Amino acid sequence: MTISSFQPPKRTLMGPGPSDVSERVLQALARPTIGHLDPAFVGMMDEMKTLLQYAFMTKNELTFPVSAPGSAGMETCFVNLVESGDKVIVCQNGVFGGRMKENVERIGATAIMVEDEWGTVVDPQKLEDALKANPDAKFVAFVHAETSTGALSDAETLTRLAHDHDCLVIVDAVTSLAGSPLKVDEWNIDAIYSGTQKCLSAPPGLSPVSFNERASEVIKNRKSKVQSWFLDLSLVMGYWGAGAKRSYHHTAPVNNLYGLHESLVILQEEGLENSWKRHMDMHLKLKAGLEEMGIGFVVKEGDRLPQLNAVYIPDGVDDAAVRGKLLNDYNLEIGAGLGALAGKVWRIGLMGHACSEKNVDFCLNSLKEVLGK
Amino acid sequence: MTISSFQPPKRTLMGPGPSDVSERVLQALARPTIGHLDPAFVGMMDEMKTLLQYAFMTKNELTFPVSAPGSAGMETCFVNLVESGDKVIVCQNGVFGGRMKENVERIGATAIMVEDEWGTVVDPQKLEDALKANPDAKFVAFVHAETSTGALSDAETLTRLAHDHDCLVIVDAVTSLAGSPLKVDEWNIDAIYSGTQKCLSAPPGLSPVSFNERASEVIKNRKSKVQSWFLDLSLVMGYWGAGAKRSYHHTAPVNNLYGLHESLVILQEEGLENSWKRHMDMHLKLKAGLEEMGIGFVVKEGDRLPQLNAVYIPDGVDDAAVRGKLLNDYNLEIGAGLGALAGKVWRIGLMGHACSEKNVDFCLNSLKEVLGK
Repeated sequence: MTISSFQPPKRTLMGPGPSDVSERVLQALARPTIGHLDPAFVGMMDEMKTLLQYAFMTKNELTFPVSAPGSAGMETCFVNLVESGDKVIVCQNGVFGGRMKENVERIGATAIMVEDEWGTVVDPQKLEDALKANPDAKFVAFVHAETSTGALSDAETLTRLAHDHDCLVIVDAVTSLAGSPLKVDEWNIDAIYSGTQKCLSAPPGLSPVSFNERASEVIKNRKSKVQSWFLDLSLVMGYWGAGAKRSYHHTAPVNNLYGLHESLVILQEEGLENSWKRHMDMHLKLKAGLEEMGIGFVVKEGDRLPQLNAVYIPDGVDDAAVRGKLLNDYNLEIGAGLGALAGKVWRIGLMGHACSEKNVDFCLNSLKEVLGK
Repeated sequence: MTISSFQPPKRTLMGPGPSDVSERVLQALARPTIGHLDPAFVGMMDEMKTLLQYAFMTKNELTFPVSAPGSAGMETCFVNLVESGDKVIVCQNGVFGGRMKENVERIGATAIMVEDEWGTVVDPQKLEDALKANPDAKFVAFVHAETSTGALSDAETLTRLAHDHDCLVIVDAVTSLAGSPLKVDEWNIDAIYSGTQKCLSAPPGLSPVSFNERASEVIKNRKSKVQSWFLDLSLVMGYWGAGAKRSYHHTAPVNNLYGLHESLVILQEEGLENSWKRHMDMHLKLKAGLEEMGIGFVVKEGDRLPQLNAVYIPDGVDDAAVRGKLLNDYNLEIGAGLGALAGKVWRIGLMGHACSEKNVDFCLNSLKEVLGK
């Protein structure tokens, strides 16, 4: 056994994430590791909070990156807020709503499912019916941007409905953050989690989360201990919390945090609204090109996520062969279908640093060549 | 609000971890991000398993890095093996045994504590007494290398005792892996977790784990679902498992894995036994220098961890002032005491890349100057 250093190929990442990471962020990863309790690192943590508050459009004190990927951010929200015996209304219109159900049930809580067709948005009327039928529900959970289908649900309306029925909301914003309008304070979102490897274009491995006062109160007033020691916010906040003594809980992923910090500095330089606009502009350009090739979208116009374009694989085309050819001959990654849409769709990501005019052209030209259009 | 790129200072990291990360590993972090399902990445994953098997001295199929820091590796072991109602004997001789207790109790299982003085090793006789008194215990958990005190317990003997009483062992090897002899197969260890930021000298954020056949069988025969979706091995193994379809569970921390891969390649180049020897040689050199300065060890000779030297702060010396001066004037980080030893000891790490003749000299000279010796 002799194994050498790993030299990854240079790809263009236009799948469902990770997205292309810029040279600036890659270089930030390579800066010298320092201690997670070093005063210089603690200063970076304070900046990180400010930058994440900017990205989430919130003043929430309890805003920080969980030291693990988006799935752990999801679990952080559920295990800290929900207790055994609670009732949670979970809206499902793709893969990730199903994962929320798993989270709820593993706490010993009950998930009331509100199901919508994959590729459609969450129907506010169905949610309202479920809220009326379940007056004892405590939480509503939904996915803002379904990465498995490319549908963008109306987080503002869903949150208002939940609040009208005295429920708190838990929102999956893994793919929406920085790519589509997302206004945590204005929309009154109680708890939200995201990922770094989508429209922020940092490497995977961290999950930004934010909790408002109402959610923080629920956490403070829990009857039982959080079932995860690693994700227990009452402990994590001794390290990340405002005015905290920065006391040791676990060792933070130092270099990954450098990368996220740099990607957020880049977002701040561009401006959040400009980033949203860039994602929409590139989506429209991609859409025009795909339609010219006769390729249609899974999600109806108006409900589409600009940063995740789920499109039907043309009849008679070999899914795996095309994706393989794009990867091997063009170093271009596009995404396969997930769950119920496996084998039926491609998912073309336009996320963060990968969302550029050059990439849209490259993707359209490569697809044309491979499909012989 | 305008926040600039973060430029960390260049420190020498001789605390309890993270340890110094070599330029080679830092450069590996900065390689282009690729997809977590990319065939090139999957090839790297296969190599990663082989390299971790080498470091753990095991043939265990179920050997991989958990996508989060060591605390999550600990939780992976406990939540997958232990079920509600189980009885676990937990040996505590420092901070991390206490954390194991928290893990056990949050599963709804019972922790039988076997306590030893902080700074001493786990007493096999006490464990045997506990095993006899608790014939219904299913697991024994202990810390091989206590990072809070610098004591190295006899993992081989403790494992044999546990097996004699039909218990499986769960071993914390966060600080021992690659720094002290650790032979998973020869010692018959059932489940083990480690960290990347100690003697492997990769950045924090990942936790190598390994499970033998006996542990795998226990996991397969669980009566209940694992309480954590993120850490559920029955799902994670669809991605990391041997012969698995590498199906998506969560997005792996791609660039952090590049770093760990590189650090393991470096370990393989040096040779595991040579790495152990280097840690011992440097420890002896540090010890001689400290003793010359009248500084004594917390742990008695023979039980000491070479890579983590807990020493008493000399009488009349201001703990925080000395550590602050070392950090600010020398860019040298040494560790504070933890838990019961806070304010009483320093923890001087000699881990991985930081474990060098140059660093030992630098540390001794800096300490001498600051203490006015």
